[in-house]
Amino acid sequence: MLVLTLGISVLGLVFAFLLARYVLQEGTGTDAMRAISDAIKEGAEAFLRRQYKTISILSIVVAALLYVLYMSTKGDSGEATRTVIAFLFGAFSSALPGYIGMYISIRANIRTASAVRTSMDRALKVSFRGGAVSGVTIVAMSLLGIVLLFVLYGGQSDPQKVPFLIVGYGFGASFVALFAQLGGGIYTKAADVGADLVGKVEAGIPEDDPRNPAVIADLVGDNVGDCAGRGADLFESTAAENIGAMILGVALFPYFGVSGIMFPLIARSFGLIASLVGIYSVTTKEDADPMQALNRGYYITSLLAAIGFYAATHTLLVVTVDGVANHTPGNWLFISGMIGIVTSILFVFITQYYTEYRYRPVREIANAAQTGPATSIITGLAVAFECTALPVLVISMAIISAYYCGLHAFAAFPDVSRASAGLYGTAVATMGMLATCAYVLAMDTFGPITDNAGGITEMSEQPEEIRAKTDRLDSVGNTTKALTKGYAIGSAALAAFLLFSAYLDEVKHLTGKPFESVDIAKPEVFVAGLLGAMLVFLFSGLAIRAVGRAAQYVINDVRAQFKAKPQILQGTMKPNYAQCVDIVTQGALKEMVLPGVLVVIAPIIVGLIFRSVGLGAESVAAFLMVGTIAGILLATVMNNGGGAWDNAKKYIETGQLGGKRSEAHKAAVVGDTVGDPLKDTAGPSLHVLIKLLSTLTLVLAPLFI
Amino acid sequence: MLVLTLGISVLGLVFAFLLARYVLQEGTGTDAMRAISDAIKEGAEAFLRRQYKTISILSIVVAALLYVLYMSTKGDSGEATRTVIAFLFGAFSSALPGYIGMYISIRANIRTASAVRTSMDRALKVSFRGGAVSGVTIVAMSLLGIVLLFVLYGGQSDPQKVPFLIVGYGFGASFVALFAQLGGGIYTKAADVGADLVGKVEAGIPEDDPRNPAVIADLVGDNVGDCAGRGADLFESTAAENIGAMILGVALFPYFGVSGIMFPLIARSFGLIASLVGIYSVTTKEDADPMQALNRGYYITSLLAAIGFYAATHTLLVVTVDGVANHTPGNWLFISGMIGIVTSILFVFITQYYTEYRYRPVREIANAAQTGPATSIITGLAVAFECTALPVLVISMAIISAYYCGLHAFAAFPDVSRASAGLYGTAVATMGMLATCAYVLAMDTFGPITDNAGGITEMSEQPEEIRAKTDRLDSVGNTTKALTKGYAIGSAALAAFLLFSAYLDEVKHLTGKPFESVDIAKPEVFVAGLLGAMLVFLFSGLAIRAVGRAAQYVINDVRAQFKAKPQILQGTMKPNYAQCVDIVTQGALKEMVLPGVLVVIAPIIVGLIFRSVGLGAESVAAFLMVGTIAGILLATVMNNGGGAWDNAKKYIETGQLGGKRSEAHKAAVVGDTVGDPLKDTAGPSLHVLIKLLSTLTLVLAPLFI
Repeated sequence: MLVLTLGISVLGLVFAFLLARYVLQEGTGTDAMRAISDAIKEGAEAFLRRQYKTISILSIVVAALLYVLYMSTKGDSGEATRTVIAFLFGAFSSALPGYIGMYISIRANIRTASAVRTSMDRALKVSFRGGAVSGVTIVAMSLLGIVLLFVLYGGQSDPQKVPFLIVGYGFGASFVALFAQLGGGIYTKAADVGADLVGKVEAGIPEDDPRNPAVIADLVGDNVGDCAGRGADLFESTAAENIGAMILGVALFPYFGVSGIMFPLIARSFGLIASLVGIYSVTTKEDADPMQALNRGYYITSLLAAIGFYAATHTLLVVTVDGVANHTPGNWLFISGMIGIVTSILFVFITQYYTEYRYRPVREIANAAQTGPATSIITGLAVAFECTALPVLVISMAIISAYYCGLHAFAAFPDVSRASAGLYGTAVATMGMLATCAYVLAMDTFGPITDNAGGITEMSEQPEEIRAKTDRLDSVGNTTKALTKGYAIGSAALAAFLLFSAYLDEVKHLTGKPFESVDIAKPEVFVAGLLGAMLVFLFSGLAIRAVGRAAQYVINDVRAQFKAKPQILQGTMKPNYAQCVDIVTQGALKEMVLPGVLVVIAPIIVGLIFRSVGLGAESVAAFLMVGTIAGILLATVMNNGGGAWDNAKKYIETGQLGGKRSEAHKAAVVGDTVGDPLKDTAGPSLHVLIKLLSTLTLVLAPLFI
Repeated sequence: MLVLTLGISVLGLVFAFLLARYVLQEGTGTDAMRAISDAIKEGAEAFLRRQYKTISILSIVVAALLYVLYMSTKGDSGEATRTVIAFLFGAFSSALPGYIGMYISIRANIRTASAVRTSMDRALKVSFRGGAVSGVTIVAMSLLGIVLLFVLYGGQSDPQKVPFLIVGYGFGASFVALFAQLGGGIYTKAADVGADLVGKVEAGIPEDDPRNPAVIADLVGDNVGDCAGRGADLFESTAAENIGAMILGVALFPYFGVSGIMFPLIARSFGLIASLVGIYSVTTKEDADPMQALNRGYYITSLLAAIGFYAATHTLLVVTVDGVANHTPGNWLFISGMIGIVTSILFVFITQYYTEYRYRPVREIANAAQTGPATSIITGLAVAFECTALPVLVISMAIISAYYCGLHAFAAFPDVSRASAGLYGTAVATMGMLATCAYVLAMDTFGPITDNAGGITEMSEQPEEIRAKTDRLDSVGNTTKALTKGYAIGSAALAAFLLFSAYLDEVKHLTGKPFESVDIAKPEVFVAGLLGAMLVFLFSGLAIRAVGRAAQYVINDVRAQFKAKPQILQGTMKPNYAQCVDIVTQGALKEMVLPGVLVVIAPIIVGLIFRSVGLGAESVAAFLMVGTIAGILLATVMNNGGGAWDNAKKYIETGQLGGKRSEAHKAAVVGDTVGDPLKDTAGPSLHVLIKLLSTLTLVLAPLFI
């Protein structure tokens, strides 16, 4: 099984290489296009270089602290070293596909813009396969990393112990993800809001106008926020979920043997293959809706993933009793997996309903814009709060029904504890949900590529019909970006319950005592839960404020450039794009530190304080669980609210309710701007936050007991 | 002790009568003033009449259902009747002071406007004592109601059983409070937003202009939302907290005897006396800041309440062991009470910091308004999310330190369970926090009275210097309204933990089995918690939407009036104020039903579903607890965010950043309008929601086991 997983993950990397080659061999258009694309490329690479430098320093500090912690609490230098190496390796494995994905996306943008001049199908393929490089690399790397660590740490001889040793990998991945998403999110929205305010509002020039010194920074932002950020987010999901499920598999070792521990990796491998087939199946006609092509590919991927799941559950999750193979567990767990796949499809539908302008919610916001910005924002807030209901109901049903599938699976084996059985059910559902991850990530990175392609087309002054085509692709990209956020929060929510149990298992493993209850009727535990939820609110506030502050740097620089060189606004002199990019980069990286560090430190402080009354581990669990609940809800509010405002504006821009330049449009623009930091900074960072809390508490468990 | 409580509550009612007489004997100004005041009076009374009719019908339906429920689960018609009577009596006792408070407040407004012409001190006294009628009546009635029920149900012969029988009283109070606050909140903001949009934005006439047909509805709204709504909110707090603390007192019966059960009522009685002294001490000089006078009164009240607390704890909470009086419990519990008083003062400070324009947060929002409405709203959101941190830290410290005081209090009595001891500590802290309730309520109702006085002065075209004086009073009123909201959410949070335990006790009492743990590591319980938090978000969304919809009715009516009679805008014909008032009334009452009913039904559905897997009671507990956490946080976000936007606008209106009619002011007006439904509808309704969940689960506990 190790060889199979290893083989498939290497195969995945090979395909990522082939996809990249496909993209890179496309033409790069005109000189004007290349000039813009080069500027974006430079800016994005400069940001990533600096960001990775900052993250590296922070990671090394954390690694050193981890070593000290493990040495002081456990005194086992071997285990300390292994945990630290796993942490650093996780951090590296998360950063590498982020870099590769970005490397391709900033090259796929111009090639998409170029291809659109000859064929829509070709443009779709270039942009989507460009996005797929990122998606496939991320999933393959997360598999490869875990398999390598598993082998390195002696998983073949001692499979029951090793999953606990590699939790550091998940923490490393989350740690990088938090800063990647937060830093990228602050960057992209600071540049966007800053460019709009000083360009559209003050100087009165249109969006994406080459005279605006911040326009390149804005285009760079799409790459570093959506592409690198969300990539790290979902890398972490798959890594953390794999490790969490392997830990649960350990409890079932007497029944499934090593198959139960390896099952998550095999299931993910099959999902990767399904995604590859889905990716290659995407093709469109010249005047068809590209979204339909992407949806078709998604359904193919889901179907193949389901078949792969059946094969995996039916062959690996078999209990042999007195020489007779009992397939009941596998069959029930297959249903769990299907619950996960169905959940992911439902999340996609629900997100579409709340964020696309074909449906009631966005139209209501657009209608409210007719009476001004205030009513448009009030209506948007109402929609944002309301739209938490359906996702929560779906997740609730998924958690409970998968849990009961798990119970049924092991009904014939009374030795399996209720918790282990049920939780393995939810774990398998999470695997089902994440099976299509590579495909969904491809759709996500497709977003910034098409967005950039639109910007390049606009700025290089291509004919109207070409712009109309990139606009179509861009609007599909907006939808896919919103969908991925829905998917990311859904999978985070489903994975959360699994990671809680991994934490409880870890504490049990460490203390040797049973630890199965987190009792919020104890005042300390209740207060810890309250503090966990508060952290989510405070973090959101700080993240939103960080955007405002970083945007201020942009505004000041653009104003200074306009003032020093009036020729820029006349169009006779090029603005200094690089300087602006540089300033946002510095601003975003500076502003990401406070909220990021807060998230890492808060659970540690809570754990240490409550340890003094003997409730450290339990309080941290409540902190984590209630914090997760608050995080799921608030992220949904922010992602969908922001998406809905954005599309209400787009709806009016299609000519409805007075169209562009109407009062309604102006009001809708205000709503869109308000939604920006919510949907692209705070919301996505919250996904990462709740997973970081899980992996952090897993790794730091020794501190709290 | 019964006689003492009875005597003090009757004394309170007598003083309320004296205060009312003081207010009513004031002059009622000019004819022009009376015309406006009469219109407000009519509108407010019409609203309250209709609202109470709707609430009566709903209450009778619920009472019938309660009877059926108790009969079918317990089969004891005596208990069923007693619970239903308690429910209806609670509903009535909550509605009556609401009516009385409003009766006085709509008469105090014109008398304040009249008094301000001769003396600021007199105006302050009229308006504040007018508010005090409401505050004193509420506290006195809540004491009287509970004492009467206690006696009626045989509390003198069987004090350990009766507290469980009167839980219906708390539920009745919460039920009325929810609809009073929600309906009033929708009314006030629908009228406000509607009047502003159609008046200021469409017709271009100033605020409070008599030509606007919605202007009287707007002034009526201040009374029905802030006065009647918040009154019902805090009536419920005191009633629910009294009952919850009495139930906890039952567990300590072997030590304190009936004194422990009666202690909450005595402590509250002393607090009422302290408040009365504080109220009479308020006086100001002609050009002094009236806020200082109110603060002085508040400190006097707090000090006297502390002394009363010392007396009560030192005489009632005494354990006699072998004939020797042991004062240790009383002394430790006195410290708990002080924790409560200090918490309330801290909440007042924190709320001031986040909502007054003397401090950083509001100034930041005002500064951000210079770059337009979007940045002003983004900054406001950042402030709103951030401002959850300090209140949560204060509440966390209060809960835990009061709990440990409770543990210390009973350290010498090992037979007292850890939970009973600690929880009694938190209960006493809640009593401390609510000791100054009557005074705080007086400050709250002072708000709509001065607001109305300002409106009457403006509309009756009084000289500029008179307007300046009412403006000063009005701005103090804005501050006190914000403070009361902070106080209400703080006391709700502190009381929440007490009510949870009352629920656990009730379930234990019903099943005869121990029930002390609410384990969110069980998937069903975790999901119930997730659903509880979701309810809070969904409810907020529905409440905000209800305002938008009801405002639409106002807009349509005003447009129709302007169109049918163009003379209205020319100022030659009076608009039909009553018609507009009537339309908002109908709209608000219609729109309050869906969110209100949702809150009542959701916990029942969750409880019944999870009962099928044997986890009904525990799941409902998690639903309640996590829902409360989400409610505390979201209410803080909405109250303080809304208050901060409001005052950012006021800051600019003082002439800063360009003053009135500047672009910054326009942007700040948008922020203010966005904040309106948050701070006056959804936020305050959330206070009531979390308490309703507590009392509802207490009463319906038999359903879930």
